[in-house]
Amino acid sequence: MPEFRKDPVVKRWVIIATERAKRPHDFARVKEEVKTTFCPFDYGNEHVTPPEIFAFRPPDTEPNTPGWWVRVVPNKFPAVNPELEPEKYGHGMYDAMTGFGYHDVIVETPDHNTNLALMDVKQVEEVIWAYKMRFNQLVKDENIKYILIFKNHGKEAGASLQHPHSQLIAIPIVPKRVQEELNGAREYYSYKERCVFCDIIHQEKFESKRIVEENDKFIAIEPFAARFPFETWILPKRHSHNFGDIEEDELRFLARILKNVLYRIYVALDNPPYNFVLHTAPTYGEGKVYYHWHLEIFPRLTKVAGFEWGSGFYINPTPPEDAAKFLREVKIE
Amino acid sequence: MPEFRKDPVVKRWVIIATERAKRPHDFARVKEEVKTTFCPFDYGNEHVTPPEIFAFRPPDTEPNTPGWWVRVVPNKFPAVNPELEPEKYGHGMYDAMTGFGYHDVIVETPDHNTNLALMDVKQVEEVIWAYKMRFNQLVKDENIKYILIFKNHGKEAGASLQHPHSQLIAIPIVPKRVQEELNGAREYYSYKERCVFCDIIHQEKFESKRIVEENDKFIAIEPFAARFPFETWILPKRHSHNFGDIEEDELRFLARILKNVLYRIYVALDNPPYNFVLHTAPTYGEGKVYYHWHLEIFPRLTKVAGFEWGSGFYINPTPPEDAAKFLREVKIE
Repeated sequence: MPEFRKDPVVKRWVIIATERAKRPHDFARVKEEVKTTFCPFDYGNEHVTPPEIFAFRPPDTEPNTPGWWVRVVPNKFPAVNPELEPEKYGHGMYDAMTGFGYHDVIVETPDHNTNLALMDVKQVEEVIWAYKMRFNQLVKDENIKYILIFKNHGKEAGASLQHPHSQLIAIPIVPKRVQEELNGAREYYSYKERCVFCDIIHQEKFESKRIVEENDKFIAIEPFAARFPFETWILPKRHSHNFGDIEEDELRFLARILKNVLYRIYVALDNPPYNFVLHTAPTYGEGKVYYHWHLEIFPRLTKVAGFEWGSGFYINPTPPEDAAKFLREVKIE
Repeated sequence: MPEFRKDPVVKRWVIIATERAKRPHDFARVKEEVKTTFCPFDYGNEHVTPPEIFAFRPPDTEPNTPGWWVRVVPNKFPAVNPELEPEKYGHGMYDAMTGFGYHDVIVETPDHNTNLALMDVKQVEEVIWAYKMRFNQLVKDENIKYILIFKNHGKEAGASLQHPHSQLIAIPIVPKRVQEELNGAREYYSYKERCVFCDIIHQEKFESKRIVEENDKFIAIEPFAARFPFETWILPKRHSHNFGDIEEDELRFLARILKNVLYRIYVALDNPPYNFVLHTAPTYGEGKVYYHWHLEIFPRLTKVAGFEWGSGFYINPTPPEDAAKFLREVKIE
C-alpha cells in the first residue's frame, strides 16, 4: 500500500511506493566512468591547481610539492570569488548581490583510484580533519553566512574528475533548504521544547528498523520520509548545531561510520554515483538549541529529478525500512 | 562576474556563474534513447493499458480501440491509488497517510515517433484540452487538494516510454514547493498589494532581454534567478490562479507558445531531455488574488542535482539573458 510520509523537520511529504518496491539490483545501470588522461590532483601536478591553502604533509616537504596526504586548494573554476566586494543591489523588482565567496577543493588522498568507501579509516579521519580546519578558518570571515561541504562521487552525480575529492563553498547567504530546516526545527522546538533531530534519533533507536549502523557517537539511518532510495543520514548523538565544534573522539567515530556507510552503499549498489552534503548551522550561530548538524547521503539511482525539482513532490520506490535492511546486511570487513 | 540572484517568489538564491557561461553546444551529450519493442500507447494496444478514462475519438469508434487522437488512461504502475480510503495517522513522532490519489497518463498522440515540439499546433491544443478536462473532473473530488500535471521527455528526464505522453497526479496534500510559492506570493501581495507574477511579467516586458517569445495571451521568459540553464517559464498575461479556468482562446495561444518554446529548445539544444511542470493553485481555491498559474520547463543539461537537492543552493552556468537570446534566435517555421 503506497503511503504518504511527512518529513518532521521541513514538513515535506513524499510518497513511499511500497507496491513496486525496488531492491538494489533493480537499479542496475550503465556505468559512466570519468575518463582522465591528466589528473591535476595527482602527485607531481601540484602546480596545476591554484596554490594550496593548506595540506597535511611531512614537515620537510615544501607546499605545492608531493608528499601530502590531504590537500586543500581553491577551485580552479570557482562558482564564487573571494576577491569581490560583497555588495547587495536591486535590479528592477529583483534582488541580487555580487558573487562573493570561497570555493575550495579538498583532495582526499594522493591515490587516484580509491574512494572514501575503500580508504583506510585513518585517511577518512584526516579528510574530516581537513573539513573541520577549513570550516573553522572560514567561520571567522564575517561576510560569510554559510559554509557548505559536499561531495560528488561519479559522473552521474556531477563529479568532473575521478580523483577522490570533496568541495567547500562559503557564501554570504543561507541556502533555502538550510533555512527551511532551521525554521522547521525552530517550530518543533517552540512546540515541544526538544530538538527534532534528537527526537528522531530517539524514535529510530526505539524502532531500530531504519538504522543502518550505530556506534558510541553517531547513528546512520534511512529517514522515515526518505526522498530517494537508499537516502542515508548520519547524525551525531550529542546535540550540537555546529559541525565546527566536533570533538577529536567524535571525529574518529564519524570517520568510521562514514566509511562503513559508504562501503555498504558501494557493495549493495555496486559503486553507485552519490552526493553527500553536510548540514550545519549558519556561521553566525543560529540554532544552538534547536538545530542539529548531520550528513545527508544520496545515491543517484533514479532519474526523475526534474519533476521533483519542479514540484517538491517525491516518489520513492524503495521503503527506507527495506533500504536499511539491505545496507545492514552488507558485511563490514 | 558571478552574481547571486534571488527568486522573488520563493526567495531562493542562486548563483549565476557568468564567467564560465555555457552556450548550447557546451551541453553536447551522449544520447540515450528509450528503446521500445512493444508500445502500450500505439494503436491496437489499447487493451494493454487500464481502460481509458476518456479519449478524443470519432463518435463511431468504441472506447479502447484505435481511432483516438488523445487518450487519457490510469497509469498501469500508479504511485497513488484511488481505491484507498484517505486516512491520516501517526507513527511515533512521525506523520503519515494512506497513499490515496489518482495517477493518470495523457497519451498525446497515436504517433509514436513525434513530440510536442514537432506536432501540429492543433494537436498540442487537443493535449491541453485533455489536461483541462481531466483537471476539472478531479477538482470535484473533495479529498483531492492538489493536481500536478507534468511531462518527462527523454530517458534522462525520467521517461520510461518514448511514445509522447504526459502525466497527472492528484493528491490529498499540497506539495512543498507549491506551498512555498503560495506563501511567497501571499507575502509579496500583503506588502505590495500586487501579484508577484504580474509584476514579473511587467518587469520582463520592460527589460525584454529575458523574453523568449510572447503572444497576445502568454509570455515565455527565462526567469531572473533561473536554477538551470535554459529553464523557461510560460505565464498567462491575464491574472488567474487556476489553470482549470483557462479560456478557449487562451488555450489556443498557450498551445502555440508551448509548441514554439519546445521547438526552440529542441533545435537549440538538439532534442534534450526535459521536464515540464504545471504550477497552479490548490483545488480548494487558495491564492485567488495573489497566485498566478504558469508552466515551468527544465531542459536536463547538467548533472549536479544531488548537491542541489541536499542544499537548495543552485549554480547556473548559463545566464538567463544568454539563454533567452539563444532561444529567440531559433527560426520558427
